[in-house]
Amino acid sequence: MSGYRRSFPTRWNDNDVYGHVNNAVYYEAMDTTINSWLIAEGGLDIGGGEVIGLCVASNCSYSASGSFPDSLAVDLSVGRLGTTSITWRLRIARESDDEQLASGEFVHVFVDRATRRPTPMPHALRTAVETQLEVAA
Amino acid sequence: MSGYRRSFPTRWNDNDVYGHVNNAVYYEAMDTTINSWLIAEGGLDIGGGEVIGLCVASNCSYSASGSFPDSLAVDLSVGRLGTTSITWRLRIARESDDEQLASGEFVHVFVDRATRRPTPMPHALRTAVETQLEVAA
Amino acid sequence: MSGYRRSFPTRWNDNDVYGHVNNAVYYEAMDTTINSWLIAEGGLDIGGGEVIGLCVASNCSYSASGSFPDSLAVDLSVGRLGTTSITWRLRIARESDDEQLASGEFVHVFVDRATRRPTPMPHALRTAVETQLEVAA
Amino acid sequence: MSGYRRSFPTRWNDNDVYGHVNNAVYYEAMDTTINSWLIAEGGLDIGGGEVIGLCVASNCSYSASGSFPDSLAVDLSVGRLGTTSITWRLRIARESDDEQLASGEFVHVFVDRATRRPTPMPHALRTAVETQLEVAA
Repeated sequence: MSGYRRSFPTRWNDNDVYGHVNNAVYYEAMDTTINSWLIAEGGLDIGGGEVIGLCVASNCSYSASGSFPDSLAVDLSVGRLGTTSITWRLRIARESDDEQLASGEFVHVFVDRATRRPTPMPHALRTAVETQLEVAA
Repeated sequence: MSGYRRSFPTRWNDNDVYGHVNNAVYYEAMDTTINSWLIAEGGLDIGGGEVIGLCVASNCSYSASGSFPDSLAVDLSVGRLGTTSITWRLRIARESDDEQLASGEFVHVFVDRATRRPTPMPHALRTAVETQLEVAA
Repeated sequence: MSGYRRSFPTRWNDNDVYGHVNNAVYYEAMDTTINSWLIAEGGLDIGGGEVIGLCVASNCSYSASGSFPDSLAVDLSVGRLGTTSITWRLRIARESDDEQLASGEFVHVFVDRATRRPTPMPHALRTAVETQLEVAA
Repeated sequence: MSGYRRSFPTRWNDNDVYGHVNNAVYYEAMDTTINSWLIAEGGLDIGGGEVIGLCVASNCSYSASGSFPDSLAVDLSVGRLGTTSITWRLRIARESDDEQLASGEFVHVFVDRATRRPTPMPHALRTAVETQLEVAA
């Protein structure tokens, strides 16, 4: 239940004309962190698994700016664990000083790869979430 | 008051491993549409203007998937017109059949380029918003 | 034999901190143009076709800078038409004044989707190249 | 003279529809590695320095495919050290097993930030290159 943190180094081209990491990159950071955990711990097989997670909603609030060559640190927890969906919560900080830059949510609905209809998430995934990540009451 | 619509052709690399335009690309579409309008109609000078718009929050809900080589169509309106901030509203559709794929919001705070402190948006910009875009009550 | 030209509008986040479209974006423009033609005219089925094109080499020379909100125009021709490979040639200009910004090459090898081993390009594709695109001697 | 190696973790959205890291991402890896070294060791001030490096040519050859969640390792050396230009050489491998995936070159011309005309690279940068990186004869 110690949670999951992933480093997300910025890239030269992440900076926009104002010298900040572009806002859309924070969604790449959230998506990358969630999928890293799903592959490493949640049993997600992105190439051939029967169930895939589709993003149906996301949001982010920005409190400070990051800039290349900063590395970001992304903390993953769970806001709501449903039957066919998960609301992930993410906190994004600058890795060097842990100043929070942004926080956001990402809602995944699990669907059958072929039919793209909602399906209960695999049991192993639910167990991994419950045992490894912080889940809000 | 006819609103603003911009084409946003997808790119080969926008598609993810599931064959869909990646969710973060929709934020690029929103940001691009807003800044296109700001430059063309709102008097934004991204290279040297004294006031710049920073994104402090954004969100998006996804109702269907786009895929390269689809072109997207992005409609811009305004949810809230404040003194130092604007909440933009965006609707993203597949251009060929106008099926809605996503809708979202983007909150810009206007800041002084040098101090990065909030500042009232330029009068010309406010006037352009009021005369050219639909603003929710 | 009139060739193929595709518009490639730039995005807000394509600009780097120096206010130019980042160099890697030109490769996205080349890849997008080639795959657009392959899907529209060359019979490429990216979802289920037996043959896919993999990039084994690419290069680009830059002669001037583009900047958002420029739209780019990409012209496609063929430098070498082999049995299992094609060397595409691309010229990238600013659409508004046709000033050349870059030129490059992109080498595709066609492989079997399952085995990823080189395979002769489909006959329909070869015919489409020969009849629709300029091929260097 | 031990050279410079940088980790470049891939992102979820780097994978294309074929399940590979898209070819353009390798240019992002090269650009990021070069600029990381320039900022850390070469004295480059991207925000305010008088001299900036512009990419005038690049190329890459691909020998194998990477896939998210691979991390890449990028090795930087110098092919040619001129007066106003540097030809960087890069080797990109999968970090886990050091299998080479790609190799490429990146030509930077140094220009005055204001006039954008070629200018000799700063003395400190030349010294850093000569003392810290492998330079081909």
